[in-house]
Amino acid sequence: MSEMRNFVAINYLECSPDYVGRFEELFGTRAHAIDRIPGFIRMEVLKPKADGTYLVVSHWENEDAFKSWTSSPEFLEGHKRGFADLQKAKEEGREAPMKSSFKTYEVLAN
Amino acid sequence: MSEMRNFVAINYLECSPDYVGRFEELFGTRAHAIDRIPGFIRMEVLKPKADGTYLVVSHWENEDAFKSWTSSPEFLEGHKRGFADLQKAKEEGREAPMKSSFKTYEVLAN
Repeated sequence: MSEMRNFVAINYLECSPDYVGRFEELFGTRAHAIDRIPGFIRMEVLKPKADGTYLVVSHWENEDAFKSWTSSPEFLEGHKRGFADLQKAKEEGREAPMKSSFKTYEVLAN
Repeated sequence: MSEMRNFVAINYLECSPDYVGRFEELFGTRAHAIDRIPGFIRMEVLKPKADGTYLVVSHWENEDAFKSWTSSPEFLEGHKRGFADLQKAKEEGREAPMKSSFKTYEVLAN
């Protein structure tokens, strides 16, 4: 059904060099909380060969499924350790160890 | 096998507004030449919801498979109509209707 094109969200995560090890550990042992959200299809975490921007690519049945995830308990559960790291850096007056920027897409072709 | 992480190439394609229709037509009727390359897994063409940068995401068994594609007859066949549009714009002294920039990644986690 061409009217029902799947939806993709990409979180572009700029990771500071001294946080890379921890960052990769967090994704290597991710909570899989997102996997329980209805309409979630799959995700990939992409490690850049050249620059410092990682991509977290998530595929969804539609935009509503993605939106319901961002306001779900699973969103908080899945980001708990990362959010704690950001909070700690803030309390200690340090730069955020990663910067996040979401962009959204529809699948035009396969 | 964690040593054999898959490889992803993303072509970031900035498309000028007056070329969007043709651009989407080309991908909607793509040649599928890439599908014949050994080591090719799948691809998605992602249409942005907000800005003008489309993403062509291709998944490969490894980096060598991707590299062999970029120097294959299938690469030229798959890009024939797009390359012709670029050539025509050049000959007519117009701006390129799209700008391409490849970045490569390894799959860190699923």
